[in-house]
Amino acid sequence: MSKLLVRVLPALEWARGYQSQLLASDMLAALIVTIMLIPQSLAYALLAGLPAEMGLYASILPLIAYALFGSSRTLSVGPVAVASLMTATAVGQVAALGTAAYATAAIAMAMISGLMLLVMGFLRFGFLANFLSHPVVSGFITASGIIIGLSQLRHILGIQGHGDTLPTIVTTLLENLPAMNGVAAVTGFAAIAFLLWARRGLRPLLVRCGLAESAAGIVAKGGPVLAILATTLASYYWEFGSRGVALVGTVPQGLPDLALPTFDRELWSDLAISAMLISIIGFVESVSVGKTLAAKRRQRIEPNRELVALGAANVASSVSGGFPVTGGFSRSVVNFDAGAQTPAASIFAALGIALVALLLTPVLFYLPKATLAATIIVAVTTLIDIAVIQRAWQYSLSDFIAVVTTIITTLLLGVELGVLAGIVASIGLHLYKTTRPHIAVVGAIAGTEHYRNVERHNVITHSNIVSLRVDQSLYFANATYLEDYIYRLISENDGLQHVILQCPAINEIDLSALEALEAINHRLREQGLTLNLSEVKGPVMDALEKSDFLQHLSGKIYLTQHQAVNDLKLDEIEPYII
Amino acid sequence: MSKLLVRVLPALEWARGYQSQLLASDMLAALIVTIMLIPQSLAYALLAGLPAEMGLYASILPLIAYALFGSSRTLSVGPVAVASLMTATAVGQVAALGTAAYATAAIAMAMISGLMLLVMGFLRFGFLANFLSHPVVSGFITASGIIIGLSQLRHILGIQGHGDTLPTIVTTLLENLPAMNGVAAVTGFAAIAFLLWARRGLRPLLVRCGLAESAAGIVAKGGPVLAILATTLASYYWEFGSRGVALVGTVPQGLPDLALPTFDRELWSDLAISAMLISIIGFVESVSVGKTLAAKRRQRIEPNRELVALGAANVASSVSGGFPVTGGFSRSVVNFDAGAQTPAASIFAALGIALVALLLTPVLFYLPKATLAATIIVAVTTLIDIAVIQRAWQYSLSDFIAVVTTIITTLLLGVELGVLAGIVASIGLHLYKTTRPHIAVVGAIAGTEHYRNVERHNVITHSNIVSLRVDQSLYFANATYLEDYIYRLISENDGLQHVILQCPAINEIDLSALEALEAINHRLREQGLTLNLSEVKGPVMDALEKSDFLQHLSGKIYLTQHQAVNDLKLDEIEPYII
Repeated sequence: MSKLLVRVLPALEWARGYQSQLLASDMLAALIVTIMLIPQSLAYALLAGLPAEMGLYASILPLIAYALFGSSRTLSVGPVAVASLMTATAVGQVAALGTAAYATAAIAMAMISGLMLLVMGFLRFGFLANFLSHPVVSGFITASGIIIGLSQLRHILGIQGHGDTLPTIVTTLLENLPAMNGVAAVTGFAAIAFLLWARRGLRPLLVRCGLAESAAGIVAKGGPVLAILATTLASYYWEFGSRGVALVGTVPQGLPDLALPTFDRELWSDLAISAMLISIIGFVESVSVGKTLAAKRRQRIEPNRELVALGAANVASSVSGGFPVTGGFSRSVVNFDAGAQTPAASIFAALGIALVALLLTPVLFYLPKATLAATIIVAVTTLIDIAVIQRAWQYSLSDFIAVVTTIITTLLLGVELGVLAGIVASIGLHLYKTTRPHIAVVGAIAGTEHYRNVERHNVITHSNIVSLRVDQSLYFANATYLEDYIYRLISENDGLQHVILQCPAINEIDLSALEALEAINHRLREQGLTLNLSEVKGPVMDALEKSDFLQHLSGKIYLTQHQAVNDLKLDEIEPYII
Repeated sequence: MSKLLVRVLPALEWARGYQSQLLASDMLAALIVTIMLIPQSLAYALLAGLPAEMGLYASILPLIAYALFGSSRTLSVGPVAVASLMTATAVGQVAALGTAAYATAAIAMAMISGLMLLVMGFLRFGFLANFLSHPVVSGFITASGIIIGLSQLRHILGIQGHGDTLPTIVTTLLENLPAMNGVAAVTGFAAIAFLLWARRGLRPLLVRCGLAESAAGIVAKGGPVLAILATTLASYYWEFGSRGVALVGTVPQGLPDLALPTFDRELWSDLAISAMLISIIGFVESVSVGKTLAAKRRQRIEPNRELVALGAANVASSVSGGFPVTGGFSRSVVNFDAGAQTPAASIFAALGIALVALLLTPVLFYLPKATLAATIIVAVTTLIDIAVIQRAWQYSLSDFIAVVTTIITTLLLGVELGVLAGIVASIGLHLYKTTRPHIAVVGAIAGTEHYRNVERHNVITHSNIVSLRVDQSLYFANATYLEDYIYRLISENDGLQHVILQCPAINEIDLSALEALEAINHRLREQGLTLNLSEVKGPVMDALEKSDFLQHLSGKIYLTQHQAVNDLKLDEIEPYII
């Protein structure tokens, strides 16, 4: 098979060796994932403020598209909590909740996000995801989880009013609390209690009831489906609808129509920034899930291929009436644990959801929205990772600031500003640290050729030499800092003849820094001192040789710091105190 | 004298030792600067699209404010070319050229910019200026110079229509060319020719005519004033006004009224981003001039104090009917060369301009705008530094890309997007480089304890050890890159027992990178390999000790790479080819 074909359609790689044994495990995994996807897809449509059927539509074609183009064997794509919340936030800014324009905008959002991901994939921009640091992503998902959980309380309580930020959600909840619907609340809290218990208690119970271990495991994954069945029956029997409980209502039966979303220039430009943020967050989330699973089976994820596959999945979602999708953590883990071996499992799961859309939607009429809200609330509890704040606090101040900035901004100002604040804070802090590099005066450790900080080690130095190790690449943001540091140092030390810059930590010297070094060299020469460099790395030396700095250098370039000191020293001081 | 007082009002430092000898040199410098400032202040008001008197007003109180608060002894503040162009661009977006609202907005701009500078100074945000790399600033000023020069051609040609970008300026020039005014053009081009000649030819001529060297030097600085006198006389005598030549016209006589600018919330928020950009560019320009001059006399510039002083100067400009000001290169050099010893020279120059505003404004009625445009065009030729493109091209690709991006964006899309593009490009390129760090496999150079890249040096290595030197701090943006690199490396090398990370270039390990190292350690341990670190720097070691990474580490931490290899080696290979 041609390598080019496999590059274009990675599915060919696993499809050619497909055997009946793989088929069996993939089919079983697909069954379990389908059972799990039914409540999830309905619930995340509710979270996004969209009709229930759109959740089903977003769980058919996107799964097939990812299966064809993705590099992960077991990732399961579809509507996920954070992307659904971000969709609701973005779409809510351009259309009113519950209108046709709202649904149209959500479909357009999937297309814009899909096209962006495809373009980023073709441009090999996968590295961009690296700029979301791990603590920032954890903080963002934690804060989003809190917002999602609280935002669903209104469905549990059967009240109106919604919000995108912690203050608006809490305020509208408190305002509308008197209008609470008791039946909805009982249904919702009962469902939450059941689902929390089912997570741990259902499987052992089924085993005690005589079910085989494996069968019990499968049925236990169906906790949310059981909750849906039970509350739907209760709702039908006790006529929840006439008691003012919000029901899912009529869900159109059948498969989605295929159609390109309407292109509205103004709408697209209004949604562009939000679509970019959803794309990036979705990509980062998806790749991190994919990597975790791939590592367990010694497989590999290719970020740029993932961009293309997620792009295709979102385009597929859009043309089939769905909303933005990405790789989900819980569903992928279920798929993996259930024994899925190839992406065929996702194709079978898509067929399963298609069957649901064709046959089972009339059953959903009586389903209380409170039940779906309960499944969301229980699901997001796994997203919340408050411990990341503590880990960051213990380890590094800048990580801590970045996490806390992300969490607070997300809670108070919403998801979009939250992501942006996280990115800006982490990049800003990183850059800030590089503007004031750690600079150590170094001396030789007795008996070695190794040079270390005079303030931390007992080292040998020389009165006519000062050796500096700059712990940072030299570039525009810190060029003047080094200049000021050296001028201050030489004004404080008499009897100096030579300054040696030990350069093992200097990975780059850009043009601004080169100009600073030239200024330092000039100033030192005026005062009768020489400037010497040691341990200059290959790539840096290559760059310096392109300039005329080396011709003007008052001192020399030494291979090692030890050779530099041996060449220049007059006497020996032990220990040296600066 | 209390140190606190000096901190608040740095002027006290030079004022207490003030002697008559200093007075003489300061007064002489002030005279020369005043002669130079008259045409400059009128010309930059024209460039900013403002009435001539506002140029004079911006050259009185701001000079005094800077003299009281600034840290440079010889910096001369006032209207400058680039800030005036930026003012015109920004104010042109909120008000029509020539209206009262336009002048009001320019005055508000000075206040907003001044307050921003003050706040940045109190927050000690001077380091922010470091993020404008030197090549980017050169490129920006060069492109601004081109735009300024071309934009003034319309005054030389006596035609209408203006623009902020190269395409609009050229288009409107060509469109309006048929309406050219011959008298204005002759005046303008004659003035340009005279000024270009005067720069080099006037002083020797005066000396040959018998003037003393020093006196000739002073008179030669007055080239622009001579051009103004000559063309004003010609304009009066030959009635340029009735020939359709644009004249400066009525300039109110007297000192400016002091008043707070009107606070209009909408106007201020419209101008905020532009004011921030003017503040940053003005600050960077001013500090770089100040540093250049201070270095010549072994004085120092304090960036945070400069922020406060420039902020005070802009607030002073605003309350006295002026527009944004900053430290100018040419006027500061003239002040320095003329022998100014203390900021008192600036105070005397301010008094000189005040006298002009009180007495000489009626003379300016007949001054052709073409003459002022000529002085601007000749002045900006010194800003244009095309060689920076070549220097960047020779030295480093990323500097080159940053410069070219800045120049092209500034020319095509205007000054504001130009600055932003330059900042984003230089920071983006720097970050991009750190995402794919240079990683060298290293071995010992025979006869030393020094380890270098196996691909560049002839080194000793060992079959059971691979030693890596990562030439970059490990942080979120490159954490996964290292992980992928190490996994690939160990899958390609059989017989490995130990991986040693030589860490002299690792200046930071953030939480994301720590998690990556933990994953690497875990994976290596699974495969029966140990992970060892050598030459970990003090600050990095401090951070690692706060985590539990060291307890889980499969290998050890070694003080030197040499000790690590001696401890772990089985045999010796020479040379080692990977």
